[in-house]
Amino acid sequence: MSGATGPSLQLRDDGRLRHLLTLAGLPRANLVELLDAAAVLRGDAAGRAALRGTLAGRTVCTLFFEPSTRTRSSFQLAAMRLGADAVNFDFALSSAKKGETALDTMRNLEAMGVDCFVVRHSDNGMVARLAAAARPGTAFVNAGDGQSSHPTQGLLDMLTLRAHKGADFSALRVLIVGDVRHSRVARSDLQALRALGAGEIRVCAPAPLLPGESELQGCRVFDSFDAAIEGVDAVLMLRLQRERMEEGLVPSLEQYFADYGLDARRLERAAPDAIVMHPGPMNRGVEIDDDVADGPQSVILDQVANGVAVRMAVLRAVLAE
Amino acid sequence: MSGATGPSLQLRDDGRLRHLLTLAGLPRANLVELLDAAAVLRGDAAGRAALRGTLAGRTVCTLFFEPSTRTRSSFQLAAMRLGADAVNFDFALSSAKKGETALDTMRNLEAMGVDCFVVRHSDNGMVARLAAAARPGTAFVNAGDGQSSHPTQGLLDMLTLRAHKGADFSALRVLIVGDVRHSRVARSDLQALRALGAGEIRVCAPAPLLPGESELQGCRVFDSFDAAIEGVDAVLMLRLQRERMEEGLVPSLEQYFADYGLDARRLERAAPDAIVMHPGPMNRGVEIDDDVADGPQSVILDQVANGVAVRMAVLRAVLAE
Amino acid sequence: MSGATGPSLQLRDDGRLRHLLTLAGLPRANLVELLDAAAVLRGDAAGRAALRGTLAGRTVCTLFFEPSTRTRSSFQLAAMRLGADAVNFDFALSSAKKGETALDTMRNLEAMGVDCFVVRHSDNGMVARLAAAARPGTAFVNAGDGQSSHPTQGLLDMLTLRAHKGADFSALRVLIVGDVRHSRVARSDLQALRALGAGEIRVCAPAPLLPGESELQGCRVFDSFDAAIEGVDAVLMLRLQRERMEEGLVPSLEQYFADYGLDARRLERAAPDAIVMHPGPMNRGVEIDDDVADGPQSVILDQVANGVAVRMAVLRAVLAE
Repeated sequence: MSGATGPSLQLRDDGRLRHLLTLAGLPRANLVELLDAAAVLRGDAAGRAALRGTLAGRTVCTLFFEPSTRTRSSFQLAAMRLGADAVNFDFALSSAKKGETALDTMRNLEAMGVDCFVVRHSDNGMVARLAAAARPGTAFVNAGDGQSSHPTQGLLDMLTLRAHKGADFSALRVLIVGDVRHSRVARSDLQALRALGAGEIRVCAPAPLLPGESELQGCRVFDSFDAAIEGVDAVLMLRLQRERMEEGLVPSLEQYFADYGLDARRLERAAPDAIVMHPGPMNRGVEIDDDVADGPQSVILDQVANGVAVRMAVLRAVLAE
Repeated sequence: MSGATGPSLQLRDDGRLRHLLTLAGLPRANLVELLDAAAVLRGDAAGRAALRGTLAGRTVCTLFFEPSTRTRSSFQLAAMRLGADAVNFDFALSSAKKGETALDTMRNLEAMGVDCFVVRHSDNGMVARLAAAARPGTAFVNAGDGQSSHPTQGLLDMLTLRAHKGADFSALRVLIVGDVRHSRVARSDLQALRALGAGEIRVCAPAPLLPGESELQGCRVFDSFDAAIEGVDAVLMLRLQRERMEEGLVPSLEQYFADYGLDARRLERAAPDAIVMHPGPMNRGVEIDDDVADGPQSVILDQVANGVAVRMAVLRAVLAE
Repeated sequence: MSGATGPSLQLRDDGRLRHLLTLAGLPRANLVELLDAAAVLRGDAAGRAALRGTLAGRTVCTLFFEPSTRTRSSFQLAAMRLGADAVNFDFALSSAKKGETALDTMRNLEAMGVDCFVVRHSDNGMVARLAAAARPGTAFVNAGDGQSSHPTQGLLDMLTLRAHKGADFSALRVLIVGDVRHSRVARSDLQALRALGAGEIRVCAPAPLLPGESELQGCRVFDSFDAAIEGVDAVLMLRLQRERMEEGLVPSLEQYFADYGLDARRLERAAPDAIVMHPGPMNRGVEIDDDVADGPQSVILDQVANGVAVRMAVLRAVLAE
C-alpha cells in the first residue's frame, strides 16, 4: 500500500474526483461541483429518469464492515437509479469468519469486476488504505470510517443548508450540538462548512464530548446550549451513542436531554426561520424532542432525500471515464 | 397518524385501490378485478414478458419486521418482473437495534424515494398505521400483520379455488382446518370467501384454537375433522405453530396429527375431486401427511405460483398513476 | 426422487448440458466447450456487453444452505451480467427454522418461477437429489456439495491453467497440496485434470489428509512438499480448515506451515515460470506465505476473474432453450 493519504489520493491528475475519501483538503471547486450536480438531480424528476442508463454495465459494491442498512440502502438506490449493477457484500456473513483480511476481500471482489466500492469500516483511514491498494481504475467512496470521515453525509448536509439558506454561506450561523468528539459526521460537516466559508460555526457539547482544540479552529465553542443557539440559522444535532453513558462521558440520558437535547422551547432562541438537522437515526427524547423532530423547522427527511441525490452525483463523478 | 382504519384508508376517491391492507370491507369489485388481472398474468407468459417495463423507475421496498424469506421472495420477484427497483430492508440488521422506531424507518426510506412498501409486522394494524402516517402518494401492501390480516394470501387462495373450481363460488363447500384463532391467513380467507359468496364455509379446530363467535359468522363449526371434511370441494389446511404446544393449547404434535392432521384416509371423505391447499411452510406429519402434500389433489405449489401473479396484480394496482 | 446420479442426470438427450452437478463423468467435449465459451467471455469486454440481454426474463436463484458470500457474489454477478433476475434465498434466515425441508424450499421457489438454482449444501449429493426432484425444465448448478464436488471451481482452475500454460495439458506437471481428503475443490480439479489429459498429476499431503487410494488413481503421491514441487508447472494450494487441528489431523498451524505451507524458498524448486493457485479464502501464514500469495507467480486473483466468466458460460449453457 502506498503512503498516499486521502486528500492527495482522491483526485486524478486533471483535478477530477477519483475517489471520495474525505472532505478534508477537497478543493472547493470539487465540492461545489458535486453539490451543483446533486441539486439538479434532486429537483428534476425527468432529468433523473434520463440518467437510468448512465452506469449500465458498471458494478457498484457496498462493502460494509459495520452494519448500516440506511446508508447502504441510500447508496444502493443511487446506484440502481443510474442503472449500475448494485451488489452488497455482507461482511458479517462472509469469509471474515474464515480469517480473510479486508484487503483480500476487496481484491477478490475487484477481480470479479467491481468498478466502485462503497465502504464503511470502524477503523480510521481504512477506506483510504483499501483505495491505495486497489487497481488504478477502481473507485472508492467512503461511507464512514471510524470517527474520522463521512463525506457524503457532509455533502448532503451542505446541500440541505444551501437549498434552505442559499448558496452564500458567508452570512450563515451554524451550530453543531452533541458528541462532536466521536462523530465522523461532525468532522465532515466542519470541513465542508469551512470550505464553503460559513459565516460563523458554533459547537456546543459537554467537555468530555469535545474534540481537541486543533479540530475546533475557527469555531466558537459553547458549554451552554441556551447560549449557543441564540440567533443561529441552522442547528445540526448529533446522535448520542448510548455507550457514551456506559463510558461515563455522560451522566444519564435524562440529564443529557436536559442539557443538550433540542426541544421547542430551546429552538425559540434560534433565528425564527432556523432549520433543524439530524443525520439519523434519531434517539427521540435523548438528543431531540418529538416536537422538534416532527416540527415545521425540521428538514431531517429532506436531508435523507438529498442523500440519494448526493450519492448519485458522487457515483457519477468517480465512475466518469 | 389519522384514525383511518384499513378499509376506509385503502381506496382512492374514485374507488381504485390505494393500498392493500385488508380484505375486510374490500368491495367485491376490487377483489374480482385483482383476481382477473392475476389470472391473466398467471396464464399468459407472453403477456407477462410485455409487462417488464410497467414499473420501471418505481421503487418497491420489502420492509419485514418479522422474518419471512418466502413471502418476501414472492413479492421481490413480482416487483422485478414488472421492472421495478426492488430493495429489501432487513429490519433485524438495522437501526432497530439503535432504537429507531418503525415509523422513522419507514419515513426515511420514503424520503429516499420508495414508492411502495410491502410490510410484514407482528403487531395487528401496524401496516395501516404506517400507511396512515405516510405521504399521500406512497402505497402500502400488507404482507401479514399480527394475527389479523394477510390479504395477498387470501387473494392467491381465491385465485387457486377459482382456477380449479370455477368463478361461481355459490355451490362451493370449503373447509378451513387448524389454528384459525391465531391465523391471519384464515381471517383473510374467511373475508374473501364471504365476499365471493362461497356456498358453505366450514371451520374445524380444537376449541382452544377457535376464534370468537363473531368471527365465525356464517360458518359451520366442527370439532371432528372426519365429520367436517364430508363432501367438501376444498380443504384449506393451516400451519400449526409449535409454540401452541408450549402454550398448552395442543396436547402433543402426535395427538394433533391424529385429530386434525390430513392424511389420505381422511381425504377420501371429501368430494372425489376435492383440492388440498396449505399456505406453507408445511409441517409434514403435524398438520399434513406426505401422501396428501405430494398427492394428486394437492394444489399447494399452484398456490405459490398464483402468489407471484397476485402480487404482480396488486403492485400494478396500487402503483397505477 | 429418481435414483439418477449426477453424471447421467446432467446431460440432455442431445448431449448438451442440462445441469452442472459434477465434473466426474462429464464428457471432455462439454468441458472444453464451457472453457472455450468462458475464455471468450473473459477476454472480450465488448462481447460481454453484448450479452446483457441474453437471460432477460429468466430467474436465477442462489440457494445456499452453507454460507459463502464470495462464491454467491460471483454467481450473482454472472447472472446479472447476462440480464437475468438474480434472487438470493438465505436459508439461514428462512423457513428452515420453521422445519421446512430443503426439498420443499426448492419446490416453492421453483413454483415462483425460478429457472435455475445455484445450490451449495453440506451434504454430498444433495444438489443432484434436488435436481432429480425438480421439474424437467429447471436447471441446477452445483456451487459446492459436501466434500464431493465444486465443478465451477474445477472449471475456473482449468481455465486459469489453460490461459497461462496453453490448451495442451499433456506436457503439464500439476501439483495439488493440502487437505485433499476433505476438499471438494481437489476432487473437481482431479477430475478435470484427468479429463483434459494432464501430463502428470502430483498430490502432496500429510497422510491423515490424503483420500482413499481409488481417488488418487494416476497421481504421484508425495509426503514431502520439497520433493513434490520439484519442476512442476503449477501448484494448486488448498485451504486448511482450522477444524482439522481440533480433530487432531494436523499437529499445529505452525507445524503445518513448516511442512506444507508454500513460501518463496519452496517455490524456487518449481519450474521458473510455475504459477501458484488457491481457491480462496486464503489462510495467510497457514498454507501460503504473503510473499507467494502476492508475488509475481500468483494467479489467484486471475482465478477469481475467471470464475465469473466460467459461471456466465455455465448459466448460458444450462439455460439455453
